[in-house]
Amino acid sequence: MTERNSAHTTIVKPGQPLSLEKVAEMVGGQLLNAEDSNDALCEGVDGPAGADETCVTMAADEETLRGVQVGSVLAVFLDKPHACDHVQIIVDDVHSAMATLAEYFRPEVQFDHHVGIHPSAVIAEDAKIHPNAIVGPGTIIGSKTRIDAGVVVGAYCRIGSRCVINPGVTIYAHCIIKDDVRISAASTIGAEGFGYRFVDGQHMPAAQFGYVVLEEKVDLGAGVTVDRGAYGSTRIGCGTKIDNQVMVAHNCQIGRHNLICSQVGIAGSCVTGDHVILAGQVGLKDHITLGDRTVVGAQAGVMDNLEGNNVYLGSPATTQRDQMQIMAVERRLPQMRKDLKQMSSRITEVETRLNASEDASAKKAA
Amino acid sequence: MTERNSAHTTIVKPGQPLSLEKVAEMVGGQLLNAEDSNDALCEGVDGPAGADETCVTMAADEETLRGVQVGSVLAVFLDKPHACDHVQIIVDDVHSAMATLAEYFRPEVQFDHHVGIHPSAVIAEDAKIHPNAIVGPGTIIGSKTRIDAGVVVGAYCRIGSRCVINPGVTIYAHCIIKDDVRISAASTIGAEGFGYRFVDGQHMPAAQFGYVVLEEKVDLGAGVTVDRGAYGSTRIGCGTKIDNQVMVAHNCQIGRHNLICSQVGIAGSCVTGDHVILAGQVGLKDHITLGDRTVVGAQAGVMDNLEGNNVYLGSPATTQRDQMQIMAVERRLPQMRKDLKQMSSRITEVETRLNASEDASAKKAA
Amino acid sequence: MTERNSAHTTIVKPGQPLSLEKVAEMVGGQLLNAEDSNDALCEGVDGPAGADETCVTMAADEETLRGVQVGSVLAVFLDKPHACDHVQIIVDDVHSAMATLAEYFRPEVQFDHHVGIHPSAVIAEDAKIHPNAIVGPGTIIGSKTRIDAGVVVGAYCRIGSRCVINPGVTIYAHCIIKDDVRISAASTIGAEGFGYRFVDGQHMPAAQFGYVVLEEKVDLGAGVTVDRGAYGSTRIGCGTKIDNQVMVAHNCQIGRHNLICSQVGIAGSCVTGDHVILAGQVGLKDHITLGDRTVVGAQAGVMDNLEGNNVYLGSPATTQRDQMQIMAVERRLPQMRKDLKQMSSRITEVETRLNASEDASAKKAA
Repeated sequence: MTERNSAHTTIVKPGQPLSLEKVAEMVGGQLLNAEDSNDALCEGVDGPAGADETCVTMAADEETLRGVQVGSVLAVFLDKPHACDHVQIIVDDVHSAMATLAEYFRPEVQFDHHVGIHPSAVIAEDAKIHPNAIVGPGTIIGSKTRIDAGVVVGAYCRIGSRCVINPGVTIYAHCIIKDDVRISAASTIGAEGFGYRFVDGQHMPAAQFGYVVLEEKVDLGAGVTVDRGAYGSTRIGCGTKIDNQVMVAHNCQIGRHNLICSQVGIAGSCVTGDHVILAGQVGLKDHITLGDRTVVGAQAGVMDNLEGNNVYLGSPATTQRDQMQIMAVERRLPQMRKDLKQMSSRITEVETRLNASEDASAKKAA
Repeated sequence: MTERNSAHTTIVKPGQPLSLEKVAEMVGGQLLNAEDSNDALCEGVDGPAGADETCVTMAADEETLRGVQVGSVLAVFLDKPHACDHVQIIVDDVHSAMATLAEYFRPEVQFDHHVGIHPSAVIAEDAKIHPNAIVGPGTIIGSKTRIDAGVVVGAYCRIGSRCVINPGVTIYAHCIIKDDVRISAASTIGAEGFGYRFVDGQHMPAAQFGYVVLEEKVDLGAGVTVDRGAYGSTRIGCGTKIDNQVMVAHNCQIGRHNLICSQVGIAGSCVTGDHVILAGQVGLKDHITLGDRTVVGAQAGVMDNLEGNNVYLGSPATTQRDQMQIMAVERRLPQMRKDLKQMSSRITEVETRLNASEDASAKKAA
Repeated sequence: MTERNSAHTTIVKPGQPLSLEKVAEMVGGQLLNAEDSNDALCEGVDGPAGADETCVTMAADEETLRGVQVGSVLAVFLDKPHACDHVQIIVDDVHSAMATLAEYFRPEVQFDHHVGIHPSAVIAEDAKIHPNAIVGPGTIIGSKTRIDAGVVVGAYCRIGSRCVINPGVTIYAHCIIKDDVRISAASTIGAEGFGYRFVDGQHMPAAQFGYVVLEEKVDLGAGVTVDRGAYGSTRIGCGTKIDNQVMVAHNCQIGRHNLICSQVGIAGSCVTGDHVILAGQVGLKDHITLGDRTVVGAQAGVMDNLEGNNVYLGSPATTQRDQMQIMAVERRLPQMRKDLKQMSSRITEVETRLNASEDASAKKAA
């Protein structure tokens, strides 16, 4: 029993930065437009919404490619050459190329079964880690951060300074938590996203090689779940505050200084601008984009992209102005139905009288 | 303090299989039609939807009884003899008989306060149990299963092979988890159902003697709750995938290869067919049945049984076809109200003109 | 590493009861009408809905003040003298006075990083605390209470007799749990409320100095979150039963013998009467009051106060009677729209015929 319990998992270390030639070679692709990028190193891989100038990303269609500014990313996986200034890596299957690179940078790693702080973790002198918390191999924890009892932090995470992680929080491997982040009890950061392929009548899990970034001053309430991205990041922007029991699905890019109230559910790959407010129990369909300063009222269901600087209500969510009018009429529906019946009777009566009058005229004429 | 903390709970062991005569004797009932079941042993007790040929079940009314195929269960508790081929055990109160038998097979047991793996647990050689996880008395864990830090498994559970149970998961006594099941962090399996009787102005908890079955290849996300059945099982069928923060209440029988998205709530005793899809934040009223390949759209509220092979939207959920028409009209309600007002004016005008015309005719006639 | 990990937090002890003169002095206020309260001691501070005769409270406006019965609280913070019999403490800013007093009685305290039961905790002889549970400094635990593995109880909590606290529950500092309370796994009691002030484009957390009271015989399901009050209590009344994944926000005062079903979300400062029933996935806007025996149907959204002894449905929630009529018409909306078009055609036809008839009459007259 001792042997079984003390056995550590074999941990595959995250890959080191790669030249673009190496990336192209790894995915069996062809490198284009790379003349000026000789020394550039690829440090990661992320979806188009989350990638920066150190990352390779992908574009599965023209529209996505147009949305990526030249120079904002290191290179783009494409399935054929495009007449644009992006550094391009042409591959047979962009998804498969992303998965290969993601697996290199963030090899799948189970929770290690050591006790306490793993010897390879690097903990600031003045961080306070509860003796029964678990800190995984290769994880780095910054100054004055407090990690409470029952917290489990996986491998190769980076947690900044002055963070507070309350009891029972689980943080999966490869996640990044920046300075001054606070997480209340029983929240889960970086679990696998809900992604399946339907093969022969069964749902086969799609690999989830991504990670989570909680930027500076993010607060998460209790019982929150933020899933890891599929290839790259699920990101909560700087200063955003999230209430209890909120769900943020894989690949979401939540903006800065959002307020997300309790029990909101955000499906995969949504993007919100800055200063967005989502009231309690709001739901967002996957792949929705909300503009800066969008406000969505309680229990609304967002089915389409929404422009910013406006308030939306209802399910499907529409502008407050339109929805208030609709709701006002809905309350009068029973009366409207009575009015309709009454009007039908009045028309019938008018028709009858008109028939009689026309008959009389006809008789007279005859 | 040592004494208090090290004191283990006295654990009542689950009952062994019983002959039907013994079952009848235990509940003070009369055994009918049992001539061919001399050697049959009762190995458990479950509701009509969850029972198999090793179980005794109950039928509180004719309709339930008709729903149970003869031979599909070992015997049925009934409150009077029925002219059917079921092996019957006639009792005064079928609920009380179920509770008695359920308590025999799954005596109520609190979490034991030992540390680590209880000496009476049986753990496969190549299972990996984190040293600070708790495994209860009599629990069996299969080959290559991983149980992470902070997991608590209660007494007399059976966990299969190649399962992965992530940090902070709690599994209550008597639960059954089959092979290749994965459970993300902070989920709770087998807590007591929300069942109360209202007595003298107070809610008295109804005993919850059941258990949970997670069949092969079930995935549960983070923060999921699946409550134990009242007398028998709450079941998640083979290959079904459940996203974060989903609630499955007591006695539910979820079919095979379902996809249940984040924040769905399924009230007690619901039954879903195979290949059902429930989108985010859907709610099901208790005792709902969904046919095979039912698809329910996000935020819908299901108030009635739904036939399979169809898509449903809205609250109350109706077919996509009907609901899309309703929603299309709802968006035009303010215009409809204006149209209605305008039509009323037009009718009034017509009436006025008709009155004038009739008056003129009458005058002329006079 | 030993030094870091074993370092206990410096804990500020809760303040002792104060004379009203001392309270006035502490907040820089002026004490009025206190002639008969010479010996009275202030033992706490709470909002108007939660305060009792041992507490100082506040009233920010006339309406709130009228809602507080004279004698039901010890004294009231006001921003100017009022002609009423309340003992008054006149201050510049009632919120700031509340915060000062709340901080005195419940100084903010992080989770302490000791292992097991803190030496200053007081545990009944026959309580059962799992060896890996954490009990904070100054916390008191009553007779026959069971605290399971992985539970973390913060500082200065009071937990009554015969309670059962299941694995993975976190209870923050200063919370009060009375006798016979049961809490299922992974629930969080007393985390900070979702309160922010918007300053210079950022959300600044408002201090949350309050606590949670779970009264006698309260049951909480799994994954429930009950946030601490801002200054005073968030209260769950005696005998109230709460299902899995329910959210109760800061300052709520939930009545006695309520039934609150799964995934209900109750925003801040709501008040419910006794014997209220909230069905699954119901949402309450903040500052809502529900009368005794209010029943709210599944998925309803409560936007206004509701009178008791009635059933409400829909979003926004209206009486069952009205809502059933609205819903009946909603299902007929597509038909209504057709009827409306048809009626419009009929009116047009009538108008045409009337025009023809009038033209004929006019011609004849000419």
